[in-house]
Amino acid sequence: MTEHRQAALEYARQHEDEFLAALKEVVAIPSISTDPDAKADIHRTAEWLAQRLRDLGMQGVAVMPTGGHPVVYAEWMGALGKPVALVYGHYDVQPVDPLELWTNPPFQPTQVGENLFARGTSDMKGQVMASLNAIESIVRTGDFPVNLKFLIEGEEEIGSPSLKKWLTDNRELLKSDFCLNPDAGMLGKEYPTITYGLRGLVYFELKVFGPDHDLHSGLAGGIVHNPAQALAELIAAMHDADGHITLPGFYDSVRALSQQERADFLRLPTSDADYVATTGVPSLWGEPEYIPAERIGARPTLEINGMISGFTGAGQKTVLPAWAMAKISCRLVPDQDSDEVHAQLTRFLQEKAPATIRWDLQKLSGAPASISDLNQPAAQSLSRAMETVWGSRPYFKREGGSIPVAGYMQNILGIDSVLTGFGLPDDNLHAPNEKMHIPTWYKGTQALIHFFFNLAEG
Amino acid sequence: MTEHRQAALEYARQHEDEFLAALKEVVAIPSISTDPDAKADIHRTAEWLAQRLRDLGMQGVAVMPTGGHPVVYAEWMGALGKPVALVYGHYDVQPVDPLELWTNPPFQPTQVGENLFARGTSDMKGQVMASLNAIESIVRTGDFPVNLKFLIEGEEEIGSPSLKKWLTDNRELLKSDFCLNPDAGMLGKEYPTITYGLRGLVYFELKVFGPDHDLHSGLAGGIVHNPAQALAELIAAMHDADGHITLPGFYDSVRALSQQERADFLRLPTSDADYVATTGVPSLWGEPEYIPAERIGARPTLEINGMISGFTGAGQKTVLPAWAMAKISCRLVPDQDSDEVHAQLTRFLQEKAPATIRWDLQKLSGAPASISDLNQPAAQSLSRAMETVWGSRPYFKREGGSIPVAGYMQNILGIDSVLTGFGLPDDNLHAPNEKMHIPTWYKGTQALIHFFFNLAEG
Repeated sequence: MTEHRQAALEYARQHEDEFLAALKEVVAIPSISTDPDAKADIHRTAEWLAQRLRDLGMQGVAVMPTGGHPVVYAEWMGALGKPVALVYGHYDVQPVDPLELWTNPPFQPTQVGENLFARGTSDMKGQVMASLNAIESIVRTGDFPVNLKFLIEGEEEIGSPSLKKWLTDNRELLKSDFCLNPDAGMLGKEYPTITYGLRGLVYFELKVFGPDHDLHSGLAGGIVHNPAQALAELIAAMHDADGHITLPGFYDSVRALSQQERADFLRLPTSDADYVATTGVPSLWGEPEYIPAERIGARPTLEINGMISGFTGAGQKTVLPAWAMAKISCRLVPDQDSDEVHAQLTRFLQEKAPATIRWDLQKLSGAPASISDLNQPAAQSLSRAMETVWGSRPYFKREGGSIPVAGYMQNILGIDSVLTGFGLPDDNLHAPNEKMHIPTWYKGTQALIHFFFNLAEG
Repeated sequence: MTEHRQAALEYARQHEDEFLAALKEVVAIPSISTDPDAKADIHRTAEWLAQRLRDLGMQGVAVMPTGGHPVVYAEWMGALGKPVALVYGHYDVQPVDPLELWTNPPFQPTQVGENLFARGTSDMKGQVMASLNAIESIVRTGDFPVNLKFLIEGEEEIGSPSLKKWLTDNRELLKSDFCLNPDAGMLGKEYPTITYGLRGLVYFELKVFGPDHDLHSGLAGGIVHNPAQALAELIAAMHDADGHITLPGFYDSVRALSQQERADFLRLPTSDADYVATTGVPSLWGEPEYIPAERIGARPTLEINGMISGFTGAGQKTVLPAWAMAKISCRLVPDQDSDEVHAQLTRFLQEKAPATIRWDLQKLSGAPASISDLNQPAAQSLSRAMETVWGSRPYFKREGGSIPVAGYMQNILGIDSVLTGFGLPDDNLHAPNEKMHIPTWYKGTQALIHFFFNLAEG
């Protein structure tokens, strides 16, 4: 095996130019999933990937219909008794507007120094191709050491509307031990990163009703509890002065961070100044007993996503509005439950809302946090692979957002996801001048080769 | 004089049918000031009134251009050494939509029982005609006992945009001792009412800025002070638990109510249940040491007229918004000053706004409260006239709103306004099925006859 590993790594090093040429081919196809005119390009991209998988000797290669954009499927099940890795990817890309802010045309890949500029290089055709490069390097130099399944969807950038049903319909086909999802990035080019936790989400709409119609603020101002004010008072009471959430019982089921987790958070190479710079706020805010990365990754939040009441146009109107509304969502961490949080917010309102108003709370959606076991073989194999290539233990990160596909993998297929990737923070994802750092991408290919061999060795 | 008064009152009683016929004529003209297609009808109404004033022997009758809709002017200056009354009115009316909610066509006056239904009957062609009826009754039976000037504008329902300049340009022409403004209503058909105070207004726009662009609530939630939350916290802090406004020094220049004023407020025939019914709130709110009528008429307020931040459409978007905005206005009472309140709100924000956000406060407009001297001859004459007709002393009321024209009279012409009128709370002003209570209107004519004679007698 060691000889095969060395041969594969060597193959990858010798074929870097060909890998780059292939990537340039596929990023030149404008597969913008939200663009109704891009249908032909979407299919062209899917077919291009399917052909490449066929060329690598993969089996059961198919461009499978979903009702929306197709999924590219492939497998290689020749490693009897070895783990089955489900490799996830997406071949669709974000729109390119504002086009005038691109230095080079977005679908004309342009190499500048160590970077390759084009839409989709980093998010995530480059990541898909790093997986294919690793597989090519291994299969051209011997037998593949583990079993593989590929799932490359075409709707990630529009919220994967067809994926849930497709996964459910193909549950048997997709049976695997874990999912490798290289759609998460690195903290910096010297900071290999494994994302192992994602926060959940529960989303509410809260309406406060006062008078039964808009009133004249002169004729009723002083005797009516203004619904905008009442809503503001309720919102203000949802946090204490230190940024803790005051819903009754809110923290009861929040899993405490272990010493190791806190040490991993502390080790993350992001400073307060970095957070101030990327957000543009005058100064940071939040629970003082946790560092910012913990507050984002491992602590629950309650956020006002929107708020509206009365007259909001230019100029002035002396209305006393009949109602006020807020969109409120909580990011959840293990082991919070969205229904429990719904009950907590309801209890908060029952206790705090004054008799001078009426209120209505709707739960719009709920999804639990997910966290992967860092001791599972896939996570350990990837960690060792990254340490081999970069010379340092990777960073273990919990992401503050919710990646729906990781939730689907857990809920529909019953498997954990190991999230990684070789994109960098300055890759301009979803923005003009998206790019990919080519040397990091080559390192990523090397790391994935190690990963598959590590996995086979257990 | 007593004989003349009796003859005039008798004339009015005998000509009630003719008065009603004339009112029906003028409300049939659709003089909707906001309707660009109603220009001809606007002019027809002005000319109709001018002709009627000429028929009554008024002098200097003119339909005077203003840049917008014309003003009808007339005068009678034959009562040497007697007071000069400026009678204000407006001949324009509100739009009629939603038309389908009218039981009868809005410009086809329809008598049902004691009520006359048509747009403008109560607001305020009926009130203008009550003045003309009183004058007709007096001039047909003798000489007019005081001096008169008439100003009937055509833009009240669109905010009197041309009036300020017209008043300034015609300051000399309009020189008077006081203004009689019958555009305020009665508290009920057995409750003759004189409105002697109006609240002022200062209007602000407050913006709170957090991050320099909208953030993903998953990626930044927990480290950034959400601007919608921060705005809510500031708004919530602007009142204490009893509804008092917490801006530093806010109540310092608020004139205390005299015992007589509090007694007049207490005497007002409006119960808490009435306020609950007309506003539709679950229960009333506000400073517990003042009754609702005092809170509306004589206490300052701070009201949220509008509020907006982030995503407010259907469904959900997990944005952490970059900014939040509120429209905030204060109703002012004597002797508050809008610039002082601006300074107080600024100081409040300087003291309370946290370092985690930035804010910007703009003052959009400001106008002081106005209050008329109830001991002046015009107010006393009207009070006695109403007591004679209704058999009880009128109610003295302070209105919570701001009537700009009363402010103009004070600031441009230097005269107090005596506000009254014979409209009732259920007249459906600005709404479908506007109506006027005919017996109350006849009483109003009688009261105005007494008023002019009382005024002459001093």
